[in-house]
Amino acid sequence: MLEQLKEEVFEANLDLPKHGLVKYTWGNVSAVDREKGVFVIKPSGVSYDKMKPSDMVVVDFDGNVVEGEMRPSSDTPTHAVLYKHYAEIGGIVHTHSTWATIWAQAGLDVAVMGTTHADTFYGAVPCARFLTQEEVDRGYEAETGRVIIETFEQRGLDIMAVPGVLLKGHGPFTWGKNAHDAVMNSVVLEEVSKLNHFARELNHFAEELPQRILDKHYLRKHGKGAYYGQK
Amino acid sequence: MLEQLKEEVFEANLDLPKHGLVKYTWGNVSAVDREKGVFVIKPSGVSYDKMKPSDMVVVDFDGNVVEGEMRPSSDTPTHAVLYKHYAEIGGIVHTHSTWATIWAQAGLDVAVMGTTHADTFYGAVPCARFLTQEEVDRGYEAETGRVIIETFEQRGLDIMAVPGVLLKGHGPFTWGKNAHDAVMNSVVLEEVSKLNHFARELNHFAEELPQRILDKHYLRKHGKGAYYGQK
Amino acid sequence: MLEQLKEEVFEANLDLPKHGLVKYTWGNVSAVDREKGVFVIKPSGVSYDKMKPSDMVVVDFDGNVVEGEMRPSSDTPTHAVLYKHYAEIGGIVHTHSTWATIWAQAGLDVAVMGTTHADTFYGAVPCARFLTQEEVDRGYEAETGRVIIETFEQRGLDIMAVPGVLLKGHGPFTWGKNAHDAVMNSVVLEEVSKLNHFARELNHFAEELPQRILDKHYLRKHGKGAYYGQK
Amino acid sequence: MLEQLKEEVFEANLDLPKHGLVKYTWGNVSAVDREKGVFVIKPSGVSYDKMKPSDMVVVDFDGNVVEGEMRPSSDTPTHAVLYKHYAEIGGIVHTHSTWATIWAQAGLDVAVMGTTHADTFYGAVPCARFLTQEEVDRGYEAETGRVIIETFEQRGLDIMAVPGVLLKGHGPFTWGKNAHDAVMNSVVLEEVSKLNHFARELNHFAEELPQRILDKHYLRKHGKGAYYGQK
Repeated sequence: MLEQLKEEVFEANLDLPKHGLVKYTWGNVSAVDREKGVFVIKPSGVSYDKMKPSDMVVVDFDGNVVEGEMRPSSDTPTHAVLYKHYAEIGGIVHTHSTWATIWAQAGLDVAVMGTTHADTFYGAVPCARFLTQEEVDRGYEAETGRVIIETFEQRGLDIMAVPGVLLKGHGPFTWGKNAHDAVMNSVVLEEVSKLNHFARELNHFAEELPQRILDKHYLRKHGKGAYYGQK
Repeated sequence: MLEQLKEEVFEANLDLPKHGLVKYTWGNVSAVDREKGVFVIKPSGVSYDKMKPSDMVVVDFDGNVVEGEMRPSSDTPTHAVLYKHYAEIGGIVHTHSTWATIWAQAGLDVAVMGTTHADTFYGAVPCARFLTQEEVDRGYEAETGRVIIETFEQRGLDIMAVPGVLLKGHGPFTWGKNAHDAVMNSVVLEEVSKLNHFARELNHFAEELPQRILDKHYLRKHGKGAYYGQK
Repeated sequence: MLEQLKEEVFEANLDLPKHGLVKYTWGNVSAVDREKGVFVIKPSGVSYDKMKPSDMVVVDFDGNVVEGEMRPSSDTPTHAVLYKHYAEIGGIVHTHSTWATIWAQAGLDVAVMGTTHADTFYGAVPCARFLTQEEVDRGYEAETGRVIIETFEQRGLDIMAVPGVLLKGHGPFTWGKNAHDAVMNSVVLEEVSKLNHFARELNHFAEELPQRILDKHYLRKHGKGAYYGQK
Repeated sequence: MLEQLKEEVFEANLDLPKHGLVKYTWGNVSAVDREKGVFVIKPSGVSYDKMKPSDMVVVDFDGNVVEGEMRPSSDTPTHAVLYKHYAEIGGIVHTHSTWATIWAQAGLDVAVMGTTHADTFYGAVPCARFLTQEEVDRGYEAETGRVIIETFEQRGLDIMAVPGVLLKGHGPFTWGKNAHDAVMNSVVLEEVSKLNHFARELNHFAEELPQRILDKHYLRKHGKGAYYGQK
């Protein structure tokens, strides 16, 4: 079942250490099959050199394992909540990548300071709040997904225009139309987190990118008038 | 047409990730054939593992595609404007390399703080201004080239003595007598951007390099009296 | 004697440069055989490309060489003191890894600022004091072990819940139930040292992780109710 | 002539990029034959993938080429002056390695903040002054060597106990009893430059290493009572 999607998810998980986003097994990628209403995710805590495509676990949107002999990633309920709530999301990535995690630990949104950001994220990447004790008790991983939804709703953000979030004191989640794009968004978020830290350290009054440049860069790559890449 | 130049431009593009200057396809290198009045540039958004020398696109100085089946880099008009205006330029590189981009986001010129800088750039690398709304509307990429020219003219800089610029909120462009030299200048600009950030952080009163040392280092590698390298 | 343990210790030593924790031979890993009352440790100052499993040295808990033709690591008495005092420890690692050493030189405990820390260390990683002149004279390496014990006793810390320490002005020691886990704890300590430095630099008022999140993350990976990884 | 020494110098030059100390050809290593009164040094500006052991150039202590068809490194006169003045020096390295260069640009001595430093350098690594206009005119490279000597004499430093120096606004020189040790000293200087920057940034009041710990670490590796490594 879902051999091709398993292969894709497997490859996307291996891309995380390749891009320097994770050490050991500290990260997970999933991708969805909307028709079947299930998603494929990495098994929990399995070393990358031993992991095979067939080890990927198939899970439904309530977090129940549909197929697979291994336990899925412990963060599976977070993925499930996001897939269930947002029909546009095709792939999800969670890492503890260094610079995005630094911003998560600092508890700050990643503002748009340059075109590297604007090429991918159409606005600041928000930092979600800590979970309450009640939420932790109710189910830490699923509630994490709900806090992400709350964050985007309270701020009125378009989930696909700003395809990432920081979990306070934890690290980033990113998503995209498929697993590959979700990984790429993690790479971008990691890089802009580093750029912004040092740009403001170098010049405490460094300006945010003007709206006109943000519009230009985002829109030349995304939406109807896009002219970046091959067509 | 231009097989050798395509090969050179192809190789120079691959040098960008090799030197850690770009992730994915975030960068582009071009090189010119002055006799034919055209330049060769990387296609837009094509993955490096699939790209072949024959995918390189031939473009004239007004940015029109002369040969090639793929769209050229979206930054092609910037390259075209620079080749047209400056007859000395043989190759051009654009990246979002981390430290040069940090300075671009900080909106600051990279001053001459050491001999690593002086060996290649005979003076501070300037940071150009943001484009206005009018310029963005008129044609973002071509106007970016014009803002580079404006920056060098207003400051009275010699384009070949200071072979690079920062675009505010964006990243660096460098150039040279060919694609290889333009890449090397990007490597140098990236390194000195990092050196200068931390040197001034370590000692807020760190001095700029005295003119006599700048002269010595630049001139022992460039111009008539040069004695660096093999002859 | 102890061929398998020698192989394990050999491999764990090679993991140090692989994870970027040591340059040259600046580090050492050991692992214990509790039944025989001895431990296996890397020889002193031997280049990694020449080192073989059979070069590993077998030492008792008083630091006497039991088997092996080479001198054991000069830090052997520190390992011996720890194995003798703490029956739970199965493997020990010492490095001068960059970020943990920076905290050691700063003389500061590594507070719990995020879940990357909480997944492995159930509380701040303490920084031990400098040795006195008397302690240096009495036997620097063994006394280093005793200062580690003093640090954990004075603070009432569980050695396996906080499996690492910083030696002031020197660098980290970590341990675990075997050599592999001890290495992994070094990787984690290195990473959280980097995260915490920049998180507080980015936001001087960045909060420590709330106790409820620390509990959740540590306990979902450790102890009876753990549900991370495969079972 | 001197085939083995050429091989050694060739290998030591290749070690510079391997340890991340140089980009392109920005660095040079030499080693001396005291009996013959000559030293072997890398040719100037030759790419490392094309360089062969036989390209190494043989030079006397006045900087005259004795054998070799290529120009020696442009820094050759600095090496010559040091070999002539200090009979103990067997190998010399010059790089623009990132962190040592940051300290050179900051114009600061690298104080002894930890045992990583104390294992190799028995005291702070001094930063030499800028050359005067007169010195630049008289012969930049040879005068650089003389400023190094002046620095060590004014401070009463033992050249072999503190085997390195920073040239203000430029970068480090290190030396040792042979080329290999000189390279290792460059690696150590690079690392401690990074450690010290961040240790004092993390804790502005971070203490220097107490003399008793400096003594212990330096002397357990160097001199008569040393017990580090194999014997």
